[in-house]
Amino acid sequence: MAEIQFKNIGLIGRIGSEQILESLIALMGFLQKHDRTIVLEEEIAKILPNHGLQTSHRRLIGEVCDLVIVVGGDGSMLTVARDLARYDVSVIGLNRGGLGFLTDVPPVGFEPILADVLKGKYTVEKRFLLDAEVKRDGEPIALGSAFNDVVVSSGETARMIEFETYIEGQFVYSQRSDGIIISTPTGSTAYALSAGGPIMHPKLDALVLVPMFPHSLSSRPIVVEGNSEIKIIVASDNLIHPVITCDGHYSIKAHAGDSIYIRKKPHKLKMIHPLDHNFYAACRDKLGWGNKLTR
Amino acid sequence: MAEIQFKNIGLIGRIGSEQILESLIALMGFLQKHDRTIVLEEEIAKILPNHGLQTSHRRLIGEVCDLVIVVGGDGSMLTVARDLARYDVSVIGLNRGGLGFLTDVPPVGFEPILADVLKGKYTVEKRFLLDAEVKRDGEPIALGSAFNDVVVSSGETARMIEFETYIEGQFVYSQRSDGIIISTPTGSTAYALSAGGPIMHPKLDALVLVPMFPHSLSSRPIVVEGNSEIKIIVASDNLIHPVITCDGHYSIKAHAGDSIYIRKKPHKLKMIHPLDHNFYAACRDKLGWGNKLTR
Amino acid sequence: MAEIQFKNIGLIGRIGSEQILESLIALMGFLQKHDRTIVLEEEIAKILPNHGLQTSHRRLIGEVCDLVIVVGGDGSMLTVARDLARYDVSVIGLNRGGLGFLTDVPPVGFEPILADVLKGKYTVEKRFLLDAEVKRDGEPIALGSAFNDVVVSSGETARMIEFETYIEGQFVYSQRSDGIIISTPTGSTAYALSAGGPIMHPKLDALVLVPMFPHSLSSRPIVVEGNSEIKIIVASDNLIHPVITCDGHYSIKAHAGDSIYIRKKPHKLKMIHPLDHNFYAACRDKLGWGNKLTR
Amino acid sequence: MAEIQFKNIGLIGRIGSEQILESLIALMGFLQKHDRTIVLEEEIAKILPNHGLQTSHRRLIGEVCDLVIVVGGDGSMLTVARDLARYDVSVIGLNRGGLGFLTDVPPVGFEPILADVLKGKYTVEKRFLLDAEVKRDGEPIALGSAFNDVVVSSGETARMIEFETYIEGQFVYSQRSDGIIISTPTGSTAYALSAGGPIMHPKLDALVLVPMFPHSLSSRPIVVEGNSEIKIIVASDNLIHPVITCDGHYSIKAHAGDSIYIRKKPHKLKMIHPLDHNFYAACRDKLGWGNKLTR
Repeated sequence: MAEIQFKNIGLIGRIGSEQILESLIALMGFLQKHDRTIVLEEEIAKILPNHGLQTSHRRLIGEVCDLVIVVGGDGSMLTVARDLARYDVSVIGLNRGGLGFLTDVPPVGFEPILADVLKGKYTVEKRFLLDAEVKRDGEPIALGSAFNDVVVSSGETARMIEFETYIEGQFVYSQRSDGIIISTPTGSTAYALSAGGPIMHPKLDALVLVPMFPHSLSSRPIVVEGNSEIKIIVASDNLIHPVITCDGHYSIKAHAGDSIYIRKKPHKLKMIHPLDHNFYAACRDKLGWGNKLTR
Repeated sequence: MAEIQFKNIGLIGRIGSEQILESLIALMGFLQKHDRTIVLEEEIAKILPNHGLQTSHRRLIGEVCDLVIVVGGDGSMLTVARDLARYDVSVIGLNRGGLGFLTDVPPVGFEPILADVLKGKYTVEKRFLLDAEVKRDGEPIALGSAFNDVVVSSGETARMIEFETYIEGQFVYSQRSDGIIISTPTGSTAYALSAGGPIMHPKLDALVLVPMFPHSLSSRPIVVEGNSEIKIIVASDNLIHPVITCDGHYSIKAHAGDSIYIRKKPHKLKMIHPLDHNFYAACRDKLGWGNKLTR
Repeated sequence: MAEIQFKNIGLIGRIGSEQILESLIALMGFLQKHDRTIVLEEEIAKILPNHGLQTSHRRLIGEVCDLVIVVGGDGSMLTVARDLARYDVSVIGLNRGGLGFLTDVPPVGFEPILADVLKGKYTVEKRFLLDAEVKRDGEPIALGSAFNDVVVSSGETARMIEFETYIEGQFVYSQRSDGIIISTPTGSTAYALSAGGPIMHPKLDALVLVPMFPHSLSSRPIVVEGNSEIKIIVASDNLIHPVITCDGHYSIKAHAGDSIYIRKKPHKLKMIHPLDHNFYAACRDKLGWGNKLTR
Repeated sequence: MAEIQFKNIGLIGRIGSEQILESLIALMGFLQKHDRTIVLEEEIAKILPNHGLQTSHRRLIGEVCDLVIVVGGDGSMLTVARDLARYDVSVIGLNRGGLGFLTDVPPVGFEPILADVLKGKYTVEKRFLLDAEVKRDGEPIALGSAFNDVVVSSGETARMIEFETYIEGQFVYSQRSDGIIISTPTGSTAYALSAGGPIMHPKLDALVLVPMFPHSLSSRPIVVEGNSEIKIIVASDNLIHPVITCDGHYSIKAHAGDSIYIRKKPHKLKMIHPLDHNFYAACRDKLGWGNKLTR
């Protein structure tokens, strides 16, 4: 690995938490001690008095930094992933949220772990994102992107939509349900898991389609190659305004009859992990799986 | 059984279907031939020209009739159940909809079946309904009733609420999920089934609580006695307006912090079935279960 | 409540655990201090030196005692339930096993809890058991009883049987699967839960039928009234010897073509609980459900 | 594609069905008309009188033929796949069984379809198989191979084993359950599906691990890359003899403490499909999924 890793380091933190500010201040001290140039995201910078650092909006951070440290929970990492995947920047998460599948550096005792990362002792994981495109009469009318999942639904709880699903142009089924979740491996431990989808290892190049409360009992999650283009055509019943939700946040209101295309984004997110990072350890921790048997 | 069964018979049909009008006309002829007094619901009566019959709104039908024949699908029966359960009237359904768990008389060939019913050859099944009451600061602010299910949710797809569940005053769990379905046996073959709930025989005096996309993987459907009072307290996070949906239609917008009480309605619906009616036959038919083995 | 509760108390403990012997010795001291007559089960008595107590086999304990304290896990309680349900004796469990849905007195600090029970401060819960009867050509050939569940299966993992299910004489479905679990509410938190069955409150008078790896995706758990007679007819394919397993232990090898009848046992087990016992607290503890929200 | 496709064609049929013999006879006539050299599997040849054809055992067929036509159901294809994957031979299935995910040529009207195949109008799909290796004290003691799935279990219904799972050398979890299914995409529509696993498209290079009746409710199917090595270590509890089952047939009895390694076989099966073959159409047909909406 290269002599000097990560000269310019961006710091991004979720706003509204005292603990996150504390972690950011600790990180600044740590990075300055390691002679790194720090760029602070301008939103969080406003709340941090007297930081004396360069500030920038998120995209410029993506352009000029080699590494971005995200302080927050998995939700913070989702927005960073959507914003920064297009740039050639590595991202690592310091966990200050509830769950932590994506933010794997602990807030207390992060120093030796990040010191190792700065010495080049880390692994890189390229994770893909999704583009969702809504077309009406063949013309694109809206775009979204997601790191976890794209959900096409009625938008309302306990209200069904009827739609057709196509994978790689092949008709799969028509279905009546509250909607359908199309999830990346990253998202497979999030909403898709609650809906009965399988856990997919982050390295797997695959998508899973998970039906939401399907009317037919024989509907099951389907796992397909990551490069597959998914098309959902919402039946042209004009009482319904299907909603396309990306990562549970950004929503597109569509019309009945619109087509929704979901496909892999061209750029991937470069996630950095400590050398001892292990996806299954995170699963054991978050999901309460059994530890090694003592013998 | 009594000499003359069902002297006054109400006819209720879903509006907007040519087939339902045809069935109603056929029923009128059939009932007149059997010397019954017919009361036509006034809404559907407007579309039936020259019927020459007494018309009435639904509640008066409940008061004056001995039997109501509902022409439509399960959805039509749900509204009739909510409207007429309080009256001492029997109800039977003639199926003109998609599914037919509740409307078990076929539209073609109904004559001998209904002739038997008019002769007293039928079974009665009393099915209970639910009352949902929303309380704010201890005061009732809204009421709903349901034949299938009461759903307490965020109202929006892919949006979680956090709430506490109590059964008979005992704390059960706090949960983060899209919401929770409280279903009667009648509703157990509807939305609750799509959400992973068990099928409950209509005679069972029980409720099932089915979590919707629960964040915790150890949440499972819970079946309790039918008389149990369920209380849901939505966590007082003021970003959310929980929605209480009854039978997938009537919705109450509540506030975070409100309590929702769900309990059995005092009155039950008297459903009439042909003598050979069989719940499991309906399951086999609707759900594609296997028939008897040939040996 | 009565003046003196539980004069004659039986002690039953699982063999093979040092901790159970310790708990039994502590219980003896405690009960002698409270002037109770103790009857020690003869099997465990052999391992307890110098106890100086009356000993007896399990059935005589059932006849002469007012209360039996079972020291062990849920497995120990299952055997006691099957052995003692026919007698008019109350049973309470002191937990020295892994899970503890049935044994709810903790091993450390049991004294004030049992002192309350001896003063009449307790609740009684009557829980029903199942009889399983195998018939060949109409003649009974074998009997079993179960507190948790009766499983009718191929006996071998990953091997299907084909069978017909009847409830109260009504044909339900034919099914190809590894087998079927018929569970009481008591068993609903055990094997049936692993197989996707719902949790049923112990007070509910119901049975659940849970298919095991059904070939048809539309097979779902079915909950019926506790008094329902279940009949399983294993298809007369002579390559298979269906196995009937009661509580996961006692197994009956049957023939293809045999009929298995499962129905409620006439006698119920009288379980004693501390006044603050709560089924849902046990669920939260064992299943990791969420505690009350702090506000 | 080449001028002459498939000069030497092997015929394999399941024994014990009159219909299969009929189809074989029809195939012989068809292939002779198309000037192909036919090699009949010797077992089925014994039942076909006066066929006048070259006969051979299965392995020699693998060596000398360009194409093998399998007449039977998916079960017949499973054994052919295990026997012939190592040879450079293409395989196509003529359906004479119940399900038909693997045997996609219909028995009636096969002529134009196979005529197209013989003209080079077909698609090739390479499907991978699994090797299962049991090691005791580090030494291999038994081998098995599977096209659908390898199941490691207690061998007995309703009996749990405790084991540790490793994927690519990384510890995943310890689990108490009836066992675990490791399935290929081919097997994902078979036993793994009954156990709650997802459907995986045949082209996906992945394995799924599906727990069987896991004691912990948070166990879920896990999908990993097809090249992943799975290791199962059965806890050294000497009461249990774990059983390794390949495709539901071939079983290895192991000892507690043995390690079972499951990995992709080096050779793949070359399956031939008609040009209009579509995996999702088979799903719709077999699983009852909804057809295209009429608009």
